Amino acid sequence: MNEGIERISSGELSLRMNVTASQIRQDLNNFGGFGQTGYGYNVSYLYNEIGKILGLNNSHDVIIIGAGHLGQAIVNYSNFEKRGFVMKALFDINPDLIGKKIGGIPVYSVDDLEKYLARNPVPIAALTLPKEAAEGIAHRLVTCGVKGIWNFAHTDLALPSGIVVENVHLSESLMRISYRLANIGEEK
Amino acid sequence: MNEGIERISSGELSLRMNVTASQIRQDLNNFGGFGQTGYGYNVSYLYNEIGKILGLNNSHDVIIIGAGHLGQAIVNYSNFEKRGFVMKALFDINPDLIGKKIGGIPVYSVDDLEKYLARNPVPIAALTLPKEAAEGIAHRLVTCGVKGIWNFAHTDLALPSGIVVENVHLSESLMRISYRLANIGEEK
Repeated sequence: MNEGIERISSGELSLRMNVTASQIRQDLNNFGGFGQTGYGYNVSYLYNEIGKILGLNNSHDVIIIGAGHLGQAIVNYSNFEKRGFVMKALFDINPDLIGKKIGGIPVYSVDDLEKYLARNPVPIAALTLPKEAAEGIAHRLVTCGVKGIWNFAHTDLALPSGIVVENVHLSESLMRISYRLANIGEEK
Repeated sequence: MNEGIERISSGELSLRMNVTASQIRQDLNNFGGFGQTGYGYNVSYLYNEIGKILGLNNSHDVIIIGAGHLGQAIVNYSNFEKRGFVMKALFDINPDLIGKKIGGIPVYSVDDLEKYLARNPVPIAALTLPKEAAEGIAHRLVTCGVKGIWNFAHTDLALPSGIVVENVHLSESLMRISYRLANIGEEK
């Protein structure tokens, strides 16, 4: 859309996405199609429909537990807001940070988590805190109605079914590089 | 190992890892086995062998391009060092940061990238910079012999074959939460 392209074929999408055209058609057909044979896809229609599939037609409030560098990086990353993710508050245990604002977002004490969520229900919380604290905080969040946990802590969380956990385990990502470097030449 | 356990069966691993025991046996057999029927796996032997598979028996120097919050978060994340990833230097264009140290690591000017890498060859570079700058910097890194790119910039990099690119696209991770929240109940 940003490039002023009105319609696009699965073949053109294929070149941009490094996925075969038939895979693209098949994937989109799983969600109902959106294209027409011989015409391709209307770009802005497709963009909106994919947005709906991803739940991006609504905005989502997000809180961040852990106001360290990673938490601050998330708050300052403007791309999320463009996708409808609104960073509402940071929580930390560090008295030097509590009461301050970071990137325009207030930092509250973790002790006030329940009070905050009672007044400001939030669907998604990011955990950017040490792994020792992650599981305990995650349970408190779930008890307060948080449904989605964006977990940066290097630990797997055991949470009730129905809670969405998305892990970003940076160590694992770095180890994948190491593995692939050690096995270069064997990759297809 | 930290728990003082000397040996473990695939069944016990299965409970901890939430993967079936037969999948664990099959995966490890792909790399040559490491276990004995009726005995299970010797934990420290298995740990070392998996480390070798992942290329963790050697240490890897890493530089970070972009000394913002995300770059600083990586420098300050001590877990990487435990796995043998040694953060050597940060690079930035911000004159307020250049010449300083962050988490004990020096910050150099991006202009000095080639000079630095000529003296200090490094296999892995993390890109924690705006997407507009990512591709240009990635090509400069590859020209200087960097083989693995840990890409946090929200863009796909077109690099020569043989270069390992590991993307950490945080927006996509957040959109996966949104998608899964929008489709809760349909998940298995």
